[in-house]
Amino acid sequence: MPKLDICFSPELLLLYDLRGRVAVIVDILRASSTIVTALGEGVTHVFPVASLEECAALGRQHGCLTAAERDGLPAAGFDLSNSPFGFRDAARRVRGRALAISTTNGTAALQRSLAAKAVVVGSFLNLAAVVAFAREQARDVLVVCAGWKGQFCLEDTVFGGALAERLAADFDVQSSDATLAALHLWQQGKADLAAYLEQSAHVRRLNSLEASQDFAFCLRLDAYATVLPIWQKDRLVDAARRNAALDEE
Amino acid sequence: MPKLDICFSPELLLLYDLRGRVAVIVDILRASSTIVTALGEGVTHVFPVASLEECAALGRQHGCLTAAERDGLPAAGFDLSNSPFGFRDAARRVRGRALAISTTNGTAALQRSLAAKAVVVGSFLNLAAVVAFAREQARDVLVVCAGWKGQFCLEDTVFGGALAERLAADFDVQSSDATLAALHLWQQGKADLAAYLEQSAHVRRLNSLEASQDFAFCLRLDAYATVLPIWQKDRLVDAARRNAALDEE
Repeated sequence: MPKLDICFSPELLLLYDLRGRVAVIVDILRASSTIVTALGEGVTHVFPVASLEECAALGRQHGCLTAAERDGLPAAGFDLSNSPFGFRDAARRVRGRALAISTTNGTAALQRSLAAKAVVVGSFLNLAAVVAFAREQARDVLVVCAGWKGQFCLEDTVFGGALAERLAADFDVQSSDATLAALHLWQQGKADLAAYLEQSAHVRRLNSLEASQDFAFCLRLDAYATVLPIWQKDRLVDAARRNAALDEE
Repeated sequence: MPKLDICFSPELLLLYDLRGRVAVIVDILRASSTIVTALGEGVTHVFPVASLEECAALGRQHGCLTAAERDGLPAAGFDLSNSPFGFRDAARRVRGRALAISTTNGTAALQRSLAAKAVVVGSFLNLAAVVAFAREQARDVLVVCAGWKGQFCLEDTVFGGALAERLAADFDVQSSDATLAALHLWQQGKADLAAYLEQSAHVRRLNSLEASQDFAFCLRLDAYATVLPIWQKDRLVDAARRNAALDEE
Protein backbone atom coordinates (compact mmCIF):
# COMPACT_ATOMS: atom_id res chain seq x y z
CA MET A 1 0.00 0.00 0.00
CA PRO A 2 1.51 3.35 -0.95
CA LYS A 3 2.18 5.81 1.86
CA LEU A 4 0.90 9.34 2.35
CA ASP A 5 3.32 11.57 4.23
CA ILE A 6 3.26 15.29 4.99
CA CYS A 7 6.23 17.66 5.10
CA PHE A 8 5.29 20.68 7.23
CA SER A 9 7.90 23.05 5.81
CA PRO A 10 10.12 23.30 2.72
CA GLU A 11 12.99 23.51 5.24
CA LEU A 12 12.33 19.85 6.14
CA LEU A 13 12.42 18.55 2.55
CA LEU A 14 16.02 17.43 3.00
CA LEU A 15 14.68 14.64 5.25
CA TYR A 16 12.60 13.09 2.45
CA ASP A 17 13.55 11.20 -0.67
CA LEU A 18 11.20 12.50 -3.34
CA ARG A 19 12.35 10.20 -6.13
CA GLY A 20 9.53 8.02 -7.44
CA ARG A 21 6.97 9.88 -5.36
CA VAL A 22 4.13 12.25 -6.15
CA ALA A 23 4.68 15.67 -4.57
CA VAL A 24 1.57 17.74 -3.80
CA ILE A 25 2.52 21.39 -3.31
CA VAL A 26 0.16 23.22 -0.97
CA ASP A 27 -0.07 26.92 -0.21
CA ILE A 28 -3.74 27.34 0.57
CA LEU A 29 -3.43 31.07 1.31
CA ARG A 30 -3.09 31.73 -1.48
CA ALA A 31 -0.68 30.61 -4.20
CA SER A 32 -2.02 27.10 -4.79
CA SER A 33 -5.65 28.26 -4.64
CA THR A 34 -4.85 31.06 -7.10
CA ILE A 35 -3.06 28.77 -9.57
CA VAL A 36 -5.95 26.30 -9.52
CA THR A 37 -8.43 29.14 -10.08
CA ALA A 38 -6.35 30.61 -12.92
CA LEU A 39 -6.24 27.28 -14.79
CA GLY A 40 -9.91 26.72 -13.99
CA GLU A 41 -10.74 30.09 -15.56
CA GLY A 42 -8.91 29.25 -18.78
CA VAL A 43 -5.31 30.35 -18.27
CA THR A 44 -3.26 28.05 -20.56
CA HIS A 45 -0.21 27.58 -18.33
CA VAL A 46 1.53 29.08 -15.32
CA PHE A 47 5.16 30.01 -14.68
CA PRO A 48 5.69 30.18 -10.92
CA VAL A 49 8.73 32.35 -10.20
CA ALA A 50 10.58 33.39 -7.08
CA SER A 51 11.34 37.05 -7.77
CA LEU A 52 9.27 40.03 -8.86
CA GLU A 53 11.95 40.78 -11.48
CA GLU A 54 11.54 37.38 -13.19
CA CYS A 55 7.80 37.83 -13.09
CA ALA A 56 7.97 41.25 -14.75
CA ALA A 57 10.48 39.95 -17.33
CA LEU A 58 8.16 37.12 -18.38
CA GLY A 59 5.42 39.70 -18.82
CA ARG A 60 7.61 41.98 -20.99
CA GLN A 61 9.34 39.31 -23.06
CA HIS A 62 6.64 36.69 -23.52
CA GLY A 63 3.44 38.67 -23.11
CA CYS A 64 2.39 36.69 -20.05
CA LEU A 65 -0.18 38.00 -17.67
CA THR A 66 1.63 38.81 -14.43
CA ALA A 67 0.50 38.32 -10.86
CA ALA A 68 2.54 39.12 -7.76
CA GLU A 69 2.32 39.75 -4.06
CA ARG A 70 4.73 40.34 -1.22
CA ASP A 71 3.83 39.58 2.40
CA GLY A 72 0.18 39.20 1.47
CA LEU A 73 -0.13 42.55 -0.33
CA PRO A 74 -0.41 43.11 -4.11
CA ALA A 75 2.95 44.13 -5.60
CA ALA A 76 2.90 47.31 -7.71
CA GLY A 77 3.22 47.15 -11.50
CA PHE A 78 1.63 43.75 -12.18
CA ASP A 79 -1.63 42.82 -13.91
CA LEU A 80 -3.07 40.93 -10.96
CA SER A 81 -2.32 40.08 -7.35
CA ASN A 82 -2.15 36.65 -5.77
CA SER A 83 -5.93 36.62 -5.30
CA PRO A 84 -8.16 33.86 -6.69
CA PHE A 85 -11.02 36.33 -6.84
CA GLY A 86 -9.04 38.50 -9.20
CA PHE A 87 -9.01 35.67 -11.73
CA ARG A 88 -12.72 35.03 -11.42
CA ASP A 89 -13.56 38.70 -11.78
CA ALA A 90 -11.28 39.02 -14.81
CA ALA A 91 -12.14 35.65 -16.38
CA ARG A 92 -12.66 37.09 -19.85
CA ARG A 93 -9.34 38.90 -19.73
CA VAL A 94 -7.32 35.88 -18.55
CA ARG A 95 -8.79 33.11 -20.76
CA GLY A 96 -6.32 31.74 -23.30
CA ARG A 97 -3.30 33.54 -21.84
CA ALA A 98 -0.21 32.35 -20.00
CA LEU A 99 0.48 33.57 -16.49
CA ALA A 100 3.69 34.37 -14.60
CA ILE A 101 3.13 34.40 -10.85
CA SER A 102 5.48 35.33 -8.04
CA THR A 103 4.56 34.40 -4.49
CA THR A 104 6.27 34.49 -1.11
CA ASN A 105 6.20 30.84 -0.07
CA GLY A 106 4.62 28.65 -2.76
CA THR A 107 7.25 29.01 -5.45
CA ALA A 108 10.07 27.96 -3.15
CA ALA A 109 8.18 24.81 -2.09
CA LEU A 110 7.59 23.87 -5.72
CA GLN A 111 11.15 24.51 -6.88
CA ARG A 112 12.54 22.35 -4.07
CA SER A 113 10.26 19.43 -4.96
CA LEU A 114 11.22 18.88 -8.58
CA ALA A 115 13.05 15.61 -7.85
CA ALA A 116 9.64 13.94 -7.51
CA LYS A 117 8.21 11.67 -10.23
CA ALA A 118 5.23 14.02 -10.56
CA VAL A 119 4.63 17.45 -9.02
CA VAL A 120 1.06 18.69 -8.71
CA VAL A 121 -0.59 21.62 -6.95
CA GLY A 122 -3.24 20.97 -4.32
CA SER A 123 -5.87 23.17 -2.68
CA PHE A 124 -9.33 22.67 -1.21
CA LEU A 125 -10.69 23.91 -4.54
CA ASN A 126 -9.31 20.89 -6.42
CA LEU A 127 -9.12 18.27 -3.67
CA ALA A 128 -11.09 15.74 -5.77
CA ALA A 129 -8.62 16.08 -8.65
CA VAL A 130 -5.66 15.46 -6.33
CA VAL A 131 -7.41 12.43 -4.82
CA ALA A 132 -8.14 10.97 -8.28
CA PHE A 133 -4.56 11.53 -9.44
CA ALA A 134 -3.05 9.95 -6.31
CA ARG A 135 -5.28 6.87 -6.66
CA GLU A 136 -4.42 6.52 -10.35
CA GLN A 137 -0.67 6.85 -9.72
CA ALA A 138 -0.74 4.50 -6.73
CA ARG A 139 2.72 5.67 -5.59
CA ASP A 140 3.91 7.21 -2.36
CA VAL A 141 2.63 10.76 -1.95
CA LEU A 142 4.33 13.61 -0.11
CA VAL A 143 2.26 16.68 0.69
CA VAL A 144 4.69 19.64 0.76
CA CYS A 145 3.29 22.49 2.85
CA ALA A 146 4.62 25.87 1.77
CA GLY A 147 4.10 27.23 5.28
CA TRP A 148 4.67 30.84 6.27
CA LYS A 149 8.32 31.81 5.77
CA GLY A 150 9.30 28.22 6.42
CA GLN A 151 7.20 27.82 9.56
CA PHE A 152 4.38 25.39 10.23
CA CYS A 153 1.04 26.72 9.09
CA LEU A 154 -2.38 25.44 10.05
CA GLU A 155 -4.33 25.76 6.80
CA ASP A 156 -1.80 23.81 4.69
CA THR A 157 -1.63 21.11 7.35
CA VAL A 158 -5.39 20.77 7.55
CA PHE A 159 -5.52 20.34 3.75
CA GLY A 160 -3.07 17.44 4.19
CA GLY A 161 -5.49 15.95 6.71
CA ALA A 162 -8.42 16.28 4.30
CA LEU A 163 -6.41 14.50 1.61
CA ALA A 164 -5.43 11.76 4.05
CA GLU A 165 -9.05 11.22 5.04
CA ARG A 166 -10.16 10.79 1.44
CA LEU A 167 -7.26 8.45 0.63
CA ALA A 168 -7.41 6.41 3.84
CA ALA A 169 -8.80 3.31 2.13
CA ASP A 170 -6.06 3.17 -0.53
CA PHE A 171 -3.04 4.65 1.23
CA ASP A 172 -1.14 4.08 4.46
CA VAL A 173 -2.02 7.19 6.48
CA GLN A 174 -1.02 5.69 9.85
CA SER A 175 2.73 5.30 9.78
CA SER A 176 3.71 8.97 9.76
CA ASP A 177 3.12 11.11 12.84
CA ALA A 178 2.79 14.18 10.63
CA THR A 179 -0.04 12.57 8.69
CA LEU A 180 -1.76 11.43 11.89
CA ALA A 181 -1.57 14.93 13.36
CA ALA A 182 -2.90 16.52 10.15
CA LEU A 183 -5.76 14.03 10.07
CA HIS A 184 -6.68 14.81 13.69
CA LEU A 185 -6.58 18.56 13.08
CA TRP A 186 -8.74 18.22 9.94
CA GLN A 187 -11.27 16.06 11.75
CA GLN A 188 -11.41 18.60 14.56
CA GLY A 189 -11.90 21.54 12.20
CA LYS A 190 -13.83 20.28 9.21
CA ALA A 191 -17.36 20.89 10.54
CA ASP A 192 -16.65 24.64 10.41
CA LEU A 193 -13.34 25.07 8.65
CA ALA A 194 -13.53 28.86 8.40
CA ALA A 195 -14.11 29.28 12.14
CA TYR A 196 -11.36 26.77 12.88
CA LEU A 197 -8.80 28.50 10.71
CA GLU A 198 -9.72 31.99 11.84
CA GLN A 199 -7.66 31.31 14.96
CA SER A 200 -4.54 31.07 12.83
CA ALA A 201 -2.06 33.93 12.89
CA HIS A 202 -1.67 33.82 9.13
CA VAL A 203 -5.43 33.98 8.58
CA ARG A 204 -5.77 36.92 10.99
CA ARG A 205 -3.02 38.66 9.02
CA LEU A 206 -4.98 38.02 5.82
CA ASN A 207 -8.17 39.35 7.35
CA SER A 208 -6.42 42.51 8.35
CA LEU A 209 -5.55 42.99 4.66
CA GLU A 210 -9.24 42.87 3.82
CA ALA A 211 -8.77 39.67 1.92
CA SER A 212 -11.49 37.81 3.79
CA GLN A 213 -13.41 37.26 0.55
CA ASP A 214 -10.38 35.32 -0.71
CA PHE A 215 -10.17 33.37 2.54
CA ALA A 216 -13.75 32.12 2.29
CA PHE A 217 -13.26 31.22 -1.36
CA CYS A 218 -10.02 29.27 -0.75
CA LEU A 219 -11.91 26.93 1.60
CA ARG A 220 -14.59 25.89 -0.93
CA LEU A 221 -14.23 22.16 -1.36
CA ASP A 222 -14.02 21.01 -4.98
CA ALA A 223 -15.02 24.30 -6.62
CA TYR A 224 -12.66 23.22 -9.44
CA ALA A 225 -12.99 19.48 -8.91
CA THR A 226 -11.29 18.46 -12.16
CA VAL A 227 -8.46 21.01 -12.36
CA LEU A 228 -5.03 19.54 -11.62
CA PRO A 229 -2.00 21.79 -12.12
CA ILE A 230 0.93 19.49 -12.97
CA TRP A 231 4.56 20.41 -13.55
CA GLN A 232 5.77 19.89 -17.11
CA LYS A 233 9.29 20.90 -18.04
CA ASP A 234 9.21 24.56 -16.94
CA ARG A 235 5.55 25.31 -16.23
CA LEU A 236 2.31 24.19 -14.61
CA VAL A 237 -0.42 22.99 -16.97
CA ASP A 238 -3.80 21.44 -16.30
CA ALA A 239 -3.32 17.65 -16.36
CA ALA A 240 -6.34 17.20 -18.66
CA ARG A 241 -4.81 19.61 -21.16
CA ARG A 242 -1.41 17.93 -20.90
CA ASN A 243 -2.87 14.56 -21.77
CA ALA A 244 -4.73 16.13 -24.71
CA ALA A 245 -1.48 17.68 -25.90
CA LEU A 246 0.35 14.36 -25.58
CA ASP A 247 -2.39 12.60 -27.54
CA GLU A 248 -2.03 15.14 -30.35
CA GLU A 249 1.71 14.61 -30.64
CA MET B 1 2.83 39.14 27.38
CA PRO B 2 5.64 36.71 26.57
CA LYS B 3 5.05 34.25 23.74
CA LEU B 4 5.14 30.46 23.74
CA ASP B 5 6.22 28.98 20.42
CA ILE B 6 7.00 25.41 19.37
CA CYS B 7 9.67 24.25 16.95
CA PHE B 8 8.69 20.81 15.61
CA SER B 9 12.18 19.76 14.54
CA PRO B 10 15.79 20.75 15.23
CA GLU B 11 16.03 21.20 11.44
CA LEU B 12 13.71 24.23 11.77
CA LEU B 13 15.74 25.97 14.49
CA LEU B 14 17.37 28.24 11.90
CA LEU B 15 13.99 30.00 11.59
CA TYR B 16 13.99 31.11 15.23
CA ASP B 17 16.04 33.63 17.12
CA LEU B 18 16.77 31.99 20.45
CA ARG B 19 18.58 34.93 22.02
CA GLY B 20 16.87 36.14 25.17
CA ARG B 21 14.47 33.22 25.17
CA VAL B 22 13.99 30.13 27.30
CA ALA B 23 14.48 26.92 25.27
CA VAL B 24 12.68 23.82 26.53
CA ILE B 25 14.25 20.70 25.00
CA VAL B 26 11.80 17.83 24.65
CA ASP B 27 12.45 14.23 23.70
CA ILE B 28 9.68 12.44 25.57
CA LEU B 29 10.69 9.00 24.28
CA ARG B 30 13.02 8.89 25.97
CA ALA B 31 16.01 11.20 26.48
CA SER B 32 14.32 14.04 28.31
CA SER B 33 12.28 11.67 30.49
CA THR B 34 15.44 9.72 31.32
CA ILE B 35 17.46 12.82 32.24
CA VAL B 36 14.68 14.08 34.52
CA THR B 37 14.46 10.65 36.17
CA ALA B 38 18.23 10.45 36.61
CA LEU B 39 18.40 13.83 38.38
CA GLY B 40 15.26 12.94 40.35
CA GLU B 41 16.98 9.76 41.57
CA GLY B 42 20.03 11.65 42.79
CA VAL B 43 22.42 11.82 39.82
CA THR B 44 24.48 14.99 40.45
CA HIS B 45 24.79 16.20 36.84
CA VAL B 46 24.43 14.97 33.28
CA PHE B 47 26.68 15.31 30.24
CA PRO B 48 24.56 14.81 27.13
CA VAL B 49 26.80 13.77 24.24
CA ALA B 50 26.27 13.02 20.57
CA SER B 51 28.51 10.01 20.03
CA LEU B 52 28.96 6.67 21.79
CA GLU B 53 32.72 7.30 21.77
CA GLU B 54 32.42 10.54 23.76
CA CYS B 55 30.09 8.80 26.16
CA ALA B 56 32.51 5.93 26.75
CA ALA B 57 35.43 8.39 27.11
CA LEU B 58 33.64 10.34 29.85
CA GLY B 59 33.06 7.05 31.63
CA ARG B 60 36.72 6.04 31.41
CA GLN B 61 38.32 9.42 32.14
CA HIS B 62 35.95 10.94 34.68
CA GLY B 63 34.31 7.91 36.23
CA CYS B 64 30.85 8.92 35.03
CA LEU B 65 28.03 6.46 34.83
CA THR B 66 27.33 5.91 31.15
CA ALA B 67 24.01 5.44 29.38
CA ALA B 68 23.52 5.00 25.64
CA GLU B 69 21.09 3.79 23.03
CA ARG B 70 20.94 3.72 19.27
CA ASP B 71 17.65 3.58 17.36
CA GLY B 72 15.78 2.78 20.55
CA LEU B 73 17.98 -0.18 21.58
CA PRO B 74 20.53 -0.26 24.43
CA ALA B 75 24.07 0.21 23.08
CA ALA B 76 26.58 -2.45 24.18
CA GLY B 77 29.31 -1.67 26.74
CA PHE B 78 27.54 1.02 28.80
CA ASP B 79 26.28 0.96 32.39
CA LEU B 80 22.67 1.78 31.50
CA SER B 81 20.44 2.32 28.49
CA ASN B 82 18.26 5.31 27.74
CA SER B 83 15.48 3.94 29.95
CA PRO B 84 14.01 5.91 32.85
CA PHE B 85 13.13 2.63 34.54
CA GLY B 86 16.77 1.67 34.59
CA PHE B 87 17.49 4.66 36.83
CA ARG B 88 14.64 3.89 39.19
CA ASP B 89 15.65 0.27 39.51
CA ALA B 90 19.26 1.23 40.10
CA ALA B 91 18.58 4.26 42.30
CA ARG B 92 21.08 3.24 44.98
CA ARG B 93 23.79 2.71 42.40
CA VAL B 94 23.26 6.05 40.61
CA ARG B 95 22.81 8.40 43.57
CA GLY B 96 25.63 10.92 43.93
CA ARG B 97 27.26 10.10 40.61
CA ALA B 98 27.62 12.03 37.37
CA LEU B 99 26.12 10.63 34.17
CA ALA B 100 27.22 10.76 30.53
CA ILE B 101 24.33 9.99 28.19
CA SER B 102 24.29 9.57 24.43
CA THR B 103 20.96 9.57 22.60
CA THR B 104 19.83 9.60 18.98
CA ASN B 105 17.79 12.80 18.82
CA GLY B 106 17.79 14.64 22.13
CA THR B 107 21.45 15.64 22.26
CA ALA B 108 21.36 17.28 18.84
CA ALA B 109 18.31 19.36 19.80
CA LEU B 110 20.03 20.53 22.96
CA GLN B 111 23.36 21.37 21.31
CA ARG B 112 21.62 23.45 18.67
CA SER B 113 19.71 25.49 21.26
CA LEU B 114 22.59 26.86 23.32
CA ALA B 115 22.11 30.41 22.02
CA ALA B 116 19.08 30.71 24.32
CA LYS B 117 19.18 32.69 27.57
CA ALA B 118 18.30 29.52 29.49
CA VAL B 119 18.09 25.91 28.29
CA VAL B 120 16.00 23.46 30.30
CA VAL B 121 14.78 19.92 29.70
CA GLY B 122 11.06 19.20 29.67
CA SER B 123 9.02 16.02 29.96
CA PHE B 124 5.61 15.04 31.29
CA LEU B 125 7.41 13.90 34.44
CA ASN B 126 8.51 17.45 35.31
CA LEU B 127 5.85 19.55 33.57
CA ALA B 128 5.08 21.48 36.78
CA ALA B 129 8.75 22.45 37.16
CA VAL B 130 8.89 23.73 33.56
CA VAL B 131 5.67 25.71 34.08
CA ALA B 132 7.01 27.30 37.29
CA PHE B 133 10.32 28.21 35.63
CA ALA B 134 8.64 29.74 32.57
CA ARG B 135 6.35 31.86 34.77
CA GLU B 136 9.26 33.01 36.94
CA GLN B 137 11.39 33.94 33.91
CA ALA B 138 8.50 35.66 32.12
CA ARG B 139 10.38 35.65 28.81
CA ASP B 140 9.51 34.17 25.42
CA VAL B 141 9.66 30.37 25.48
CA LEU B 142 10.53 28.09 22.59
CA VAL B 143 9.74 24.38 22.96
CA VAL B 144 12.29 22.50 20.85
CA CYS B 145 10.99 19.07 19.87
CA ALA B 146 13.78 16.57 19.27
CA GLY B 147 11.55 14.65 16.87
CA TRP B 148 12.52 11.36 15.25
CA LYS B 149 15.56 11.81 13.01
CA GLY B 150 14.50 15.38 12.41
CA GLN B 151 10.88 14.55 11.59
CA PHE B 152 7.74 15.71 13.36
CA CYS B 153 6.83 13.47 16.26
CA LEU B 154 3.50 13.30 18.05
CA GLU B 155 4.54 12.79 21.68
CA ASP B 156 6.91 15.78 21.77
CA THR B 157 4.27 17.97 20.12
CA VAL B 158 1.58 16.93 22.57
CA PHE B 159 3.90 17.84 25.45
CA GLY B 160 4.19 21.31 23.90
CA GLY B 161 0.38 21.46 23.93
CA ALA B 162 0.23 20.48 27.60
CA LEU B 163 2.73 23.22 28.47
CA ALA B 164 0.74 25.76 26.42
CA GLU B 165 -2.46 24.83 28.24
CA ARG B 166 -0.90 25.36 31.65
CA LEU B 167 0.71 28.65 30.61
CA ALA B 168 -2.28 30.03 28.69
CA ALA B 169 -3.13 32.66 31.32
CA ASP B 170 0.39 34.12 31.41
CA PHE B 171 1.71 33.59 27.87
CA ASP B 172 0.53 34.32 24.34
CA VAL B 173 -0.28 30.84 23.03
CA GLN B 174 -2.44 32.08 20.12
CA SER B 175 -0.11 33.78 17.70
CA SER B 176 1.83 30.73 16.53
CA ASP B 177 0.12 28.10 14.38
CA ALA B 178 2.47 25.46 15.76
CA THR B 179 1.38 26.23 19.32
CA LEU B 180 -2.30 26.22 18.32
CA ALA B 181 -1.94 22.84 16.62
CA ALA B 182 -0.07 21.37 19.60
CA LEU B 183 -2.74 22.67 21.96
CA HIS B 184 -5.50 21.10 19.85
CA LEU B 185 -3.70 17.75 19.69
CA TRP B 186 -3.11 17.76 23.46
CA GLN B 187 -6.73 18.61 24.17
CA GLN B 188 -7.83 15.81 21.86
CA GLY B 189 -5.51 13.25 23.45
CA LYS B 190 -5.20 14.18 27.11
CA ALA B 191 -8.16 12.18 28.46
CA ASP B 192 -6.31 8.98 27.53
CA LEU B 193 -2.83 10.00 26.52
CA ALA B 194 -1.44 6.47 26.27
CA ALA B 195 -4.18 5.33 23.89
CA TYR B 196 -3.78 8.52 21.86
CA LEU B 197 -0.04 8.13 21.46
CA GLU B 198 -0.17 4.41 20.76
CA GLN B 199 -1.18 5.32 17.21
CA SER B 200 2.19 6.96 16.68
CA ALA B 201 4.76 5.20 14.55
CA HIS B 202 7.50 5.97 17.02
CA VAL B 203 5.50 4.57 19.93
CA ARG B 204 4.71 1.39 18.00
CA ARG B 205 8.42 1.02 17.33
CA LEU B 206 9.08 1.40 21.04
CA ASN B 207 6.44 -1.18 21.91
CA SER B 208 8.03 -3.63 19.55
CA LEU B 209 11.23 -3.24 21.56
CA GLU B 210 9.36 -4.33 24.69
CA ALA B 211 9.83 -0.93 26.21
CA SER B 212 6.16 -0.43 26.92
CA GLN B 213 6.89 -0.12 30.65
CA ASP B 214 9.03 2.91 29.81
CA PHE B 215 6.29 4.32 27.60
CA ALA B 216 3.68 4.24 30.35
CA PHE B 217 6.16 5.78 32.82
CA CYS B 218 7.16 8.63 30.49
CA LEU B 219 3.52 9.79 30.39
CA ARG B 220 3.14 10.18 34.17
CA LEU B 221 2.36 13.81 34.78
CA ASP B 222 4.52 15.47 37.42
CA ALA B 223 6.11 12.32 38.81
CA TYR B 224 9.19 14.54 39.42
CA ALA B 225 7.29 17.80 39.79
CA THR B 226 10.22 19.81 41.16
CA VAL B 227 13.10 18.49 39.03
CA LEU B 228 14.31 20.95 36.39
CA PRO B 229 17.41 20.02 34.38
CA ILE B 230 19.06 23.30 33.35
CA TRP B 231 22.13 23.82 31.19
CA GLN B 232 25.13 25.23 33.03
CA LYS B 233 28.41 25.68 31.19
CA ASP B 234 28.90 22.10 29.91
CA ARG B 235 26.32 20.03 31.76
CA LEU B 236 22.74 19.69 32.95
CA VAL B 237 22.12 20.16 36.66
CA ASP B 238 18.94 20.31 38.67
CA ALA B 239 17.96 23.99 38.94
CA ALA B 240 17.40 23.69 42.70
CA ARG B 241 20.93 22.36 43.12
CA ARG B 242 22.35 25.07 40.88
CA ASN B 243 20.84 27.80 43.00
CA ALA B 244 22.14 26.12 46.14
CA ALA B 245 25.63 25.98 44.61
CA LEU B 246 25.47 29.65 43.62
CA ASP B 247 24.41 30.63 47.14
CA GLU B 248 27.42 28.80 48.57
CA GLU B 249 29.89 30.60 46.31
